[in-house]
Amino acid sequence: MAARHEQIAEELRQAIDREQYTVGARLPSEAELAARYDVSRGTVRQAVATLTAEGLIGSRQGARRVVLASRRSQSFGELRSFAQWAQAMGRTASGTVISSERRRATAEDTVRLHLPDEAEVLHVLRVRGLDGERVLLERTVYADWIAPAVEDIEPDCTSVTQRLYEATGLVFSYGEHLIDAVAAGTRDAALLGVRRGSPLLRVRRVTTTHTGRPVEWSDDRYRPGSVSFSVHNSIGANPLTRRPAEPGTA
Amino acid sequence: MAARHEQIAEELRQAIDREQYTVGARLPSEAELAARYDVSRGTVRQAVATLTAEGLIGSRQGARRVVLASRRSQSFGELRSFAQWAQAMGRTASGTVISSERRRATAEDTVRLHLPDEAEVLHVLRVRGLDGERVLLERTVYADWIAPAVEDIEPDCTSVTQRLYEATGLVFSYGEHLIDAVAAGTRDAALLGVRRGSPLLRVRRVTTTHTGRPVEWSDDRYRPGSVSFSVHNSIGANPLTRRPAEPGTA
Repeated sequence: MAARHEQIAEELRQAIDREQYTVGARLPSEAELAARYDVSRGTVRQAVATLTAEGLIGSRQGARRVVLASRRSQSFGELRSFAQWAQAMGRTASGTVISSERRRATAEDTVRLHLPDEAEVLHVLRVRGLDGERVLLERTVYADWIAPAVEDIEPDCTSVTQRLYEATGLVFSYGEHLIDAVAAGTRDAALLGVRRGSPLLRVRRVTTTHTGRPVEWSDDRYRPGSVSFSVHNSIGANPLTRRPAEPGTA
Repeated sequence: MAARHEQIAEELRQAIDREQYTVGARLPSEAELAARYDVSRGTVRQAVATLTAEGLIGSRQGARRVVLASRRSQSFGELRSFAQWAQAMGRTASGTVISSERRRATAEDTVRLHLPDEAEVLHVLRVRGLDGERVLLERTVYADWIAPAVEDIEPDCTSVTQRLYEATGLVFSYGEHLIDAVAAGTRDAALLGVRRGSPLLRVRRVTTTHTGRPVEWSDDRYRPGSVSFSVHNSIGANPLTRRPAEPGTA
C-alpha cells in the first residue's frame, strides 16, 4: 500500500488534472490540506514536495502554492515535442504512422518551408497516444532535405524529434503556432475514435532550426478533453498608449 | 478609385486573412509579386511598406519578408485586451452585456481570485463583436474589490480594460491562459449565432495586477473561423538532455 503522503500526492495530481485547481490558481494552504485529509502538516509537506519536484506546483507565495502545470496542459512557454512533454509529465507517449508518402510540394508547402517550386516533400499522417489512449492526429509535411532521415525512422517511434537529433544532429529551435478549433471530419473522427463533428483543438505549426530554416509544418488536432495548452503572458514593453488616470480617481 | 499600390496592399491583407500566407511564413519576393500583379517593383514596395507599417509583415530576411500577424490571429506574445487587439489590427470591436449579477463566490472563484470564503463576486456575460459580427462570448467573474467599478461601466462599452484604467488606474499586467476546444451548448449557440455542437475555441484566463493580485477570471469562447491565436516559442534554456550526435552522422 502506498504511504499516506503518496496517496495525497496522487489525489492532488488528479484534482489538478480534473482542473479542480487550474494552472495559475493557488492550492489551499498546508493547514487547510492537513485538515481536509486528516493528516499532519508534515505529511502534507511531503506530498507537496513531490508535486513541486514534478513541476506541477511552484514555491510558496504567502501561505499557498501556485499550480504551474497539469498533466493534461502543455505549456507554450517553450518549444517541446509531444514526447518530451509527456515524459516530463510522467506520462507515456506513443506514435503510429498511418501513411507516409512523397509528393510534389504544393504552393502552400513551398511558402511555409521556403522550398523551390519543384521540390518534393514528405507527407506523414501519424496518430499519437498518451497512456495508451489516442489523443492527437498529426499531419506533417517535411522539407525535402530532411525527408530521407524521417523515412528511416520506424513507424511506431515514440519521439521523432529525438531520433532525428540522434541521426542527424538536427535540433528544433523555434516554433510558430496558430491555434483554433475545428469540427472532426469523418477521417479525423475514425482515427481519433470520436464522433464526427466533435470539437478538436487545432494547432498548425512551423518548426525551424536555430538559423530559422523551416524543417516541417504540421496540422495537429487534439481529441476533446485530452490535452489543453497553457500560456503565460504579460503586458507588452510597448503597450498601446493609455490615457493617464484623472487626478483623484486612481 | 484606390491607387494600384493600395489595391495590392488590400489583396495581400486578404491573402493573409485567408491564410494563403500564414503567420511565420514568407511572402513571395518583390520580383515575384511584381510579376504576379503586373506592376513595377516600386509599386510592390509601396504596398509592402503599408503592411509593414500596420505590423502585418516584418522586415526583409534575404529576398523575402515574413508574415508577423493576420487580422484574424491574436498573438499570445503579450497580454492585450480584445479591444486593444482589434484596434491594432484596424478592426472595430464592440461589446454587449447580456447579464450582470452579484453572487456568493464559489469554491472555484475563491481559489482563482484569492478571495475569502464569504466574498461576493460579480458575474458578467458579454457578447463581443468584430466589425459588426458576433465572435466571442465572455463569462467573466470579477473580484469583489473591483466589482463596483465594473458595474459603473455602460453595458455597450467597447473596452472594459480601458475604462477600468481610466476610472481606477488599474492595469492588467499578467495573464494565465488555458486553451482547449469545446462544443457549443444551446445557450452558446444562440448567443453566437452558430449551430449547437459547433467547435468553439475556449480560452480560460486569470488576469492579475503587476503584483500578481487576481482581478478577474474568464471563460471566453470564440466562434469558429472568427479569431485564431498565434504563439511563437523556442527551445528552452534547459531543454531535456539530448544524447550527443554520433560522430560522423551530424
